[in-house]
Amino acid sequence: MRRGFYIGRFQPYHNGHQSVLMRIAEDVDEIIIGVGSAQLSHQVDNPFTAGERVLMITRALSEIGRPFYVIPIEDIKRNALWVAHVRSMTPPFDLCYSSNPLVVQLFREAGIPVHSPAMYERQTHSGTEIRKRMLNGEAWKQLVPDVVVNVIEEIHGADRLLRVAGDD
Amino acid sequence: MRRGFYIGRFQPYHNGHQSVLMRIAEDVDEIIIGVGSAQLSHQVDNPFTAGERVLMITRALSEIGRPFYVIPIEDIKRNALWVAHVRSMTPPFDLCYSSNPLVVQLFREAGIPVHSPAMYERQTHSGTEIRKRMLNGEAWKQLVPDVVVNVIEEIHGADRLLRVAGDD
Amino acid sequence: MRRGFYIGRFQPYHNGHQSVLMRIAEDVDEIIIGVGSAQLSHQVDNPFTAGERVLMITRALSEIGRPFYVIPIEDIKRNALWVAHVRSMTPPFDLCYSSNPLVVQLFREAGIPVHSPAMYERQTHSGTEIRKRMLNGEAWKQLVPDVVVNVIEEIHGADRLLRVAGDD
Amino acid sequence: MRRGFYIGRFQPYHNGHQSVLMRIAEDVDEIIIGVGSAQLSHQVDNPFTAGERVLMITRALSEIGRPFYVIPIEDIKRNALWVAHVRSMTPPFDLCYSSNPLVVQLFREAGIPVHSPAMYERQTHSGTEIRKRMLNGEAWKQLVPDVVVNVIEEIHGADRLLRVAGDD
Amino acid sequence: MRRGFYIGRFQPYHNGHQSVLMRIAEDVDEIIIGVGSAQLSHQVDNPFTAGERVLMITRALSEIGRPFYVIPIEDIKRNALWVAHVRSMTPPFDLCYSSNPLVVQLFREAGIPVHSPAMYERQTHSGTEIRKRMLNGEAWKQLVPDVVVNVIEEIHGADRLLRVAGDD
Amino acid sequence: MRRGFYIGRFQPYHNGHQSVLMRIAEDVDEIIIGVGSAQLSHQVDNPFTAGERVLMITRALSEIGRPFYVIPIEDIKRNALWVAHVRSMTPPFDLCYSSNPLVVQLFREAGIPVHSPAMYERQTHSGTEIRKRMLNGEAWKQLVPDVVVNVIEEIHGADRLLRVAGDD
Repeated sequence: MRRGFYIGRFQPYHNGHQSVLMRIAEDVDEIIIGVGSAQLSHQVDNPFTAGERVLMITRALSEIGRPFYVIPIEDIKRNALWVAHVRSMTPPFDLCYSSNPLVVQLFREAGIPVHSPAMYERQTHSGTEIRKRMLNGEAWKQLVPDVVVNVIEEIHGADRLLRVAGDD
Repeated sequence: MRRGFYIGRFQPYHNGHQSVLMRIAEDVDEIIIGVGSAQLSHQVDNPFTAGERVLMITRALSEIGRPFYVIPIEDIKRNALWVAHVRSMTPPFDLCYSSNPLVVQLFREAGIPVHSPAMYERQTHSGTEIRKRMLNGEAWKQLVPDVVVNVIEEIHGADRLLRVAGDD
Repeated sequence: MRRGFYIGRFQPYHNGHQSVLMRIAEDVDEIIIGVGSAQLSHQVDNPFTAGERVLMITRALSEIGRPFYVIPIEDIKRNALWVAHVRSMTPPFDLCYSSNPLVVQLFREAGIPVHSPAMYERQTHSGTEIRKRMLNGEAWKQLVPDVVVNVIEEIHGADRLLRVAGDD
Repeated sequence: MRRGFYIGRFQPYHNGHQSVLMRIAEDVDEIIIGVGSAQLSHQVDNPFTAGERVLMITRALSEIGRPFYVIPIEDIKRNALWVAHVRSMTPPFDLCYSSNPLVVQLFREAGIPVHSPAMYERQTHSGTEIRKRMLNGEAWKQLVPDVVVNVIEEIHGADRLLRVAGDD
Repeated sequence: MRRGFYIGRFQPYHNGHQSVLMRIAEDVDEIIIGVGSAQLSHQVDNPFTAGERVLMITRALSEIGRPFYVIPIEDIKRNALWVAHVRSMTPPFDLCYSSNPLVVQLFREAGIPVHSPAMYERQTHSGTEIRKRMLNGEAWKQLVPDVVVNVIEEIHGADRLLRVAGDD
Repeated sequence: MRRGFYIGRFQPYHNGHQSVLMRIAEDVDEIIIGVGSAQLSHQVDNPFTAGERVLMITRALSEIGRPFYVIPIEDIKRNALWVAHVRSMTPPFDLCYSSNPLVVQLFREAGIPVHSPAMYERQTHSGTEIRKRMLNGEAWKQLVPDVVVNVIEEIHGADRLLRVAGDD
């Protein structure tokens, strides 16, 4: 039984994440998704709560055909402790998937194998791009799974983002 | 769509929790299970990590027939903020299930309905009793679901408990 | 201009505190009241929030005839830093009033004069005694100022205490 | 009885705050002033301690003709918990006054009415402008109440600001 | 080159610690001494600051004939992260010396060899016993190295202990 | 007996630090070196752990001819408490050596004498410059003591820095 760990902030969860996870699902028996910076929300760069992100991800993965775990991971702000923190909050895993250089380095120093999956059309498949579009009133819905559009609409997510981005 | 929230420390998850959750599953469409004191482990009263507890619960609920979310909840140590903390880490929910007086009071002050399910044979269906039996070498496996026995054995959980309970 | 500092948890504020503060008011020009363990509430030993305690104290001192400041002080959990913490949260003061041995020692090590006022009928004029009476349904209202009774009734304080003290 | 909440960092308290609070005093029976980022001091953007800011505000409001509470509020660094944190540290209030978009959004999500008072001559009535003038040796005293000038002079506030702004 | 790690709270450092460290010095090339619960002081069970304990240990080991490092280790309150925390604060080490069951278990789970040295006359060679004697005015100086007596006298350590142990 | 305190982040320890400490060694009987921001590592600006920095400094000072203490100091993020925090973690000291304006101001407000030693060829003798050279593959080894080169090589420090600086 092989269990893989994938981490992101998912602000919001988008099609790039989805396609990466579908490829991971071919490699492993079970997937753990860590929702990073779980304590942050209501910020221009982090508009959604951890719970809202858990909901987006769980909905989007309902058809993935592999058992999966969606786990909020609060920041620990001590890089040397971060891998131990992640491991304490998650079921045991055998390998990590990440393209973030710090995450890669920290797992490697801990002796855990890391794969760095390429993300398709990375420029547009990014939380930064999607939040920019939300703020500018541009089209963003085609960049995220339909169920994520639903979650964001239910929580009035675009409105929240616009408001917290307002000038003082 | 009704979503219910149930919280415990699950040190370990046992048949009492299981039967309560099976009854909750009849009331609601989706269940959120909060794994409390998520940051604690390797203590006599809290031997298992949050990740190990997530694994026990997810395995035990595989047949429950309702979508469910298993979310580690770190202690915030400020009762007046605890409900807001829980809500930030979980998908939105409509009602809470708990028999803990503090949890009941905090949710009621926040205007969230609380149900207090009775637990069958509460004396033996308790984490305290199970940990005591593990420490004394008494029979405990019949008090938890089989898949939980497997998880505890894989992580050498009873050994860990015995060791951290050792005299200095 | 002499400013004095007095600290307590005020769970709740009672006639003993009131009479000590009336004597302090004769010694100094302005009084700072520190509301200790400000982050705690909804516990058997700490039922009231800092804000509720601020309200009790402010109401009770309305006739004291001296300018006063009521300042919540969160616990810092590092005794060696506590005096610096208190001083950062309060206007500058010249002397401290306390009978708590730790508070006395910490201020003395910091070179700040400390007076230890005697409390009249200390056995009954204590938060512990008042909370015990609330829990047992015994008479407690004569032990606190009338305005404090009003605050506790408005927030259903005795009910809250009973509930958080309930058996699991 | 209506109680209103107004929050700022007050680095330092200035005439803009004063005129806003005088208008709030016409609307409500009691005013709570939250001193935000209470834990910060000795920084270019946050030169004054919470206690020093409490002193400035209390002095400046001595003639306001309404009971008021000045409460240090430490940062909680979790936006989703901030309203609960504020409410735990303050007497109960009915409405909030703020022009800060995040504060407005957080209180609105919590169901608390928010008013956004306009600030007169906002460009110069700003802590940023006053701190800039202090650093450049320009005239700043006419922008704050006289009693605030006194507090800043007693604590050698302008000197402190200049020193912490020095090059390494 | 072999480096060993030894941890304690050293409240205060005593002859038992000294004799254990002299035996460790025969096994390894360099010794790291971790001063645990570094953030605690001015308590009946933890009267001395980390800095005072560093001074005691450094003085007492001046003749040990091995390079050594004395490192304050603040509590992290998450057992699953504690080994990573210790390792981030100390030079790399090859083995750990401890008789504390939790420390032994945590290092073993991390794959670090642990030796458990016996302590000579453990009943009297204990911080608990020494603090009890200080409180009761009984003879304690023969239980600690002479240089530690000097440090405790310079900081009026016995007086501090008596005062913080006083009744409220 | 005069004891002096010198603080830095030492990312990494370099010849500038070394020459300052050699001059301090002529002034005082014992030296305390505080390793600031001890909790940070694996960042572009803070690549090395506190323990690695302790090792660099201890090795580099082996010939300094004065007793010295190398103490990790975690950030407290409250400037008004920082001096108390430092003093709780270190043996008592009589004076501080620092050129950092904030450090100078905080110690002066606490009544502790501060000397500001000039650093020779400050442009190149800086952690920023050395990290920049490591990242660009330029010569940096002549800017740090030989024993520090050894420590950095043993821990593959330049590689770590390059990796954590990588693009996402």
